Amino acid sequence: MLGRVRTAVAQLVGGLGPAHGAQPPRDSPAPPPVPPGPSACRGPPAGGGFFSRPAFLQLTSEELQRADDHAGRAVQSPRESCRRLPWSTGYAEVINAGKSQHNEDQACCEVVVVDRRCSPRCNPAPKECTGEAEGQGRKDLCFHYWGLFDGHAGSGAAVMASKLLHLHIRDQLRDLVDILQDSSPPPLCLPSDSRALPAERNRAPLAQADAELPNDALPRFHLEKAVSHESLVIGAIENAFKRMDDQIERERTTRLVAGGCCALAVVYLLGKVYVANAGDSRAIIIRNGEIIPMSREFTPETERQRLQFLGFLRPELLGNEFTHLEFPRRIQHKELGKKMLYRDQNMNGWAYKRIEEDDLKFPLIYGEGKKARVMATIGVTRGLGDHDLKVYNSNIHIKPFLSCVPEVRVYDLTQYEHCPDDVLVLGTDGLWDVTSDGEVADVVTEVLMNYEPNDPCRYTRAAHELVVRSRGVLKERGWRLANDKLGSGDDISVFVIPLGGPGNYT
Amino acid sequence: MLGRVRTAVAQLVGGLGPAHGAQPPRDSPAPPPVPPGPSACRGPPAGGGFFSRPAFLQLTSEELQRADDHAGRAVQSPRESCRRLPWSTGYAEVINAGKSQHNEDQACCEVVVVDRRCSPRCNPAPKECTGEAEGQGRKDLCFHYWGLFDGHAGSGAAVMASKLLHLHIRDQLRDLVDILQDSSPPPLCLPSDSRALPAERNRAPLAQADAELPNDALPRFHLEKAVSHESLVIGAIENAFKRMDDQIERERTTRLVAGGCCALAVVYLLGKVYVANAGDSRAIIIRNGEIIPMSREFTPETERQRLQFLGFLRPELLGNEFTHLEFPRRIQHKELGKKMLYRDQNMNGWAYKRIEEDDLKFPLIYGEGKKARVMATIGVTRGLGDHDLKVYNSNIHIKPFLSCVPEVRVYDLTQYEHCPDDVLVLGTDGLWDVTSDGEVADVVTEVLMNYEPNDPCRYTRAAHELVVRSRGVLKERGWRLANDKLGSGDDISVFVIPLGGPGNYT
Repeated sequence: MLGRVRTAVAQLVGGLGPAHGAQPPRDSPAPPPVPPGPSACRGPPAGGGFFSRPAFLQLTSEELQRADDHAGRAVQSPRESCRRLPWSTGYAEVINAGKSQHNEDQACCEVVVVDRRCSPRCNPAPKECTGEAEGQGRKDLCFHYWGLFDGHAGSGAAVMASKLLHLHIRDQLRDLVDILQDSSPPPLCLPSDSRALPAERNRAPLAQADAELPNDALPRFHLEKAVSHESLVIGAIENAFKRMDDQIERERTTRLVAGGCCALAVVYLLGKVYVANAGDSRAIIIRNGEIIPMSREFTPETERQRLQFLGFLRPELLGNEFTHLEFPRRIQHKELGKKMLYRDQNMNGWAYKRIEEDDLKFPLIYGEGKKARVMATIGVTRGLGDHDLKVYNSNIHIKPFLSCVPEVRVYDLTQYEHCPDDVLVLGTDGLWDVTSDGEVADVVTEVLMNYEPNDPCRYTRAAHELVVRSRGVLKERGWRLANDKLGSGDDISVFVIPLGGPGNYT
Repeated sequence: MLGRVRTAVAQLVGGLGPAHGAQPPRDSPAPPPVPPGPSACRGPPAGGGFFSRPAFLQLTSEELQRADDHAGRAVQSPRESCRRLPWSTGYAEVINAGKSQHNEDQACCEVVVVDRRCSPRCNPAPKECTGEAEGQGRKDLCFHYWGLFDGHAGSGAAVMASKLLHLHIRDQLRDLVDILQDSSPPPLCLPSDSRALPAERNRAPLAQADAELPNDALPRFHLEKAVSHESLVIGAIENAFKRMDDQIERERTTRLVAGGCCALAVVYLLGKVYVANAGDSRAIIIRNGEIIPMSREFTPETERQRLQFLGFLRPELLGNEFTHLEFPRRIQHKELGKKMLYRDQNMNGWAYKRIEEDDLKFPLIYGEGKKARVMATIGVTRGLGDHDLKVYNSNIHIKPFLSCVPEVRVYDLTQYEHCPDDVLVLGTDGLWDVTSDGEVADVVTEVLMNYEPNDPCRYTRAAHELVVRSRGVLKERGWRLANDKLGSGDDISVFVIPLGGPGNYT
């Protein structure tokens, strides 16, 4: 299953241009080519991993250098002369103000064809497996895809995920090509060769199923749970994130894939928009002036109870240095025996407890807002990579507390007639840290108003303006916004995706 | 701390009337008397535990017998000649249609005085600890309390919780009497004798605190997290539920406390309503015709991921009989090697997996809606009791998967001017299974309209009507509603609490 993804990663992080010696497996067409040229890869920087900017920016060497300039912080957008992004999507980005060597954000925008998985029977003629299915009149699927990846501790994981996550999603969807295009409910069970067409569905009579229950003592339920098409796509995306994370783990040492990244991915498939978020990036829909949140952030504060529950059940993961209890401040040794406010894993409120020796350990979750950390180390709790991340100067691994599984929200595009000003905005935390949802909506609406509804460049202008305003203007005391608040010193990347604009769904 | 609670339970389940030989501890006033007389206790039925109806119903022996009649299913409400419940609260209940020997629902409505906890210094003069604090001019606290307890597998846990949970809440609030009445933020740390008045607050300088950090390798945060008064009350209620559950565990064999119960408790304290729910009862506010949900249900479906996560991390709890994976139906042995839809603990979507030997085990969570079960046994995942609950014909304990911790929602009564028709409705699942939130709101509004706004009986009339309509009318094929849907055959108990009615907050 991973053959083609492996090939693509060989092309990507093994160097520039096509892979040498790597052959795609027989049942697969060639992977989408990784764009060659100066904007593709550069590396490895001191922190390990490789550096690149999104291929769709088509940056020349000089432009790449300018994009990498922490002092100038020039905002990058696709040139108007370039090939338009699907759906006339707008995009803009800016490098951080010096907090890391390179822009650790990465982005991807693709149209991906899902060819159905080939059964053993159809070898050695792989071409039968593309195009229309044998006599069924069903076509291969295709989905639109946008991804934002906010890297930390190196660009490696973000670059790798930006080049490959959509291929993992394609891989997970390959078993579902026929099922998703059939209006009847998905079959619960597939034959072992997994090429079941809906006509071949296998539903054993329940009486027979029950007759074979291994444990006679258990009550017998006559039940088949209905599973929707939508939940199959959600499951495919969730598992694609896991496979992506597994691949980073396997190949991180040979490919020098450094650090980790938050991942925000959007899939448009069969009329529905799936927004998958693992980390602290954010997606909102702006529809007729109304803001519809399409993601939530996963941070030590929002995931406190999941992390504390794990620390409580598996205290060995805390390495005798941390306590799973939360305290509102560090406790002094001389306070032993006094009573201190605390929160346990199953509490939302606070209560007093008598301080014991164990409470002097560092709290697993500590800090507030943007400064909240897991094990005093990391401020996001979901994402890809970070397999080698440890507590400073210790052998305590942090990865067991992190999740690579996204939360997927679904928006049915067919349920509402969208106008050209209705958009989906994706941004890394550099945007949202300084610009609220409402301010983003105001800026987008203001910019779009200045361009004809059928001008395909208007969405990139909106994205550009969002980045310019959030980065701020260089003043004496740093990058500042119009209201003299501090602008974001972080990398910022923004997609503005029209939901009812010109050339949509193409 | 538990002295007084122990005394009260001795009075309650040890028999009728006051306890023999049990003395309240010296620092405590006498516990609230358990109402004597025919309606207090009767017991133990075949299933173990003791049976009673809420004391405030003041049922005579004959009335109690009628309330226990599964065929008549007479709806019980407080007599108009009785002492009114606080806030003119309305109440009604009906026994089930034969599914268990007695009505396993229980209810409580009380006004509870919280006297501040006494420090060792104030012995041996306990009277100093009541009334006004020494020279501070602060008074003891008092809270209003309503509780609904929906028992299963016996009445014992529900009866015990209905008599004692509010005393555990009082116990948890005793350290907070002064803190909650002081407008400045709660102190993070209290002296060991825990009698800190706000003036004595102990905040160590942070520089000093940091100088004592045990692990020099960890980064130093200069942080004090702000904790609100509200979150202290939430913490107190959460911990009271845990103490109640601990007490049931300790005393279940000596007191013959059978089964378990869902618990829905409401505390009104200092202008705010705290709704604490552990189980599948429900609370809604009806305000100016609008419905505000004040709880959510905890069932195998809503808590699937918490339970699967536990089964995944602690497979030994599954006793080699269950798998933490979810499948949409039972798998037959002959399907080994095929692909089946499944959901893992971190998935919301579904995907196919190849069936292995381990997948033939029974799923930890199985069934849909009201038929969903944990380990094929229990349909609620939070509540009190159930310490001896095992999978049928096995030695596998279910309690580790159940939580006694409620979710607490807060409603600030002072933020809105309520009219006499604005109410908080609490009901056990017998109500909500057959009557939707909207229908409940319609019935309440319809009944209240027929009575003068200052008629204190109107809320009991509304509760009575809700129970009558949800129980249905006995027709050929069982208890049926007006629309010929099947009425609830379950026990039903309902509180209708006016938020702006006559005599409120008194």
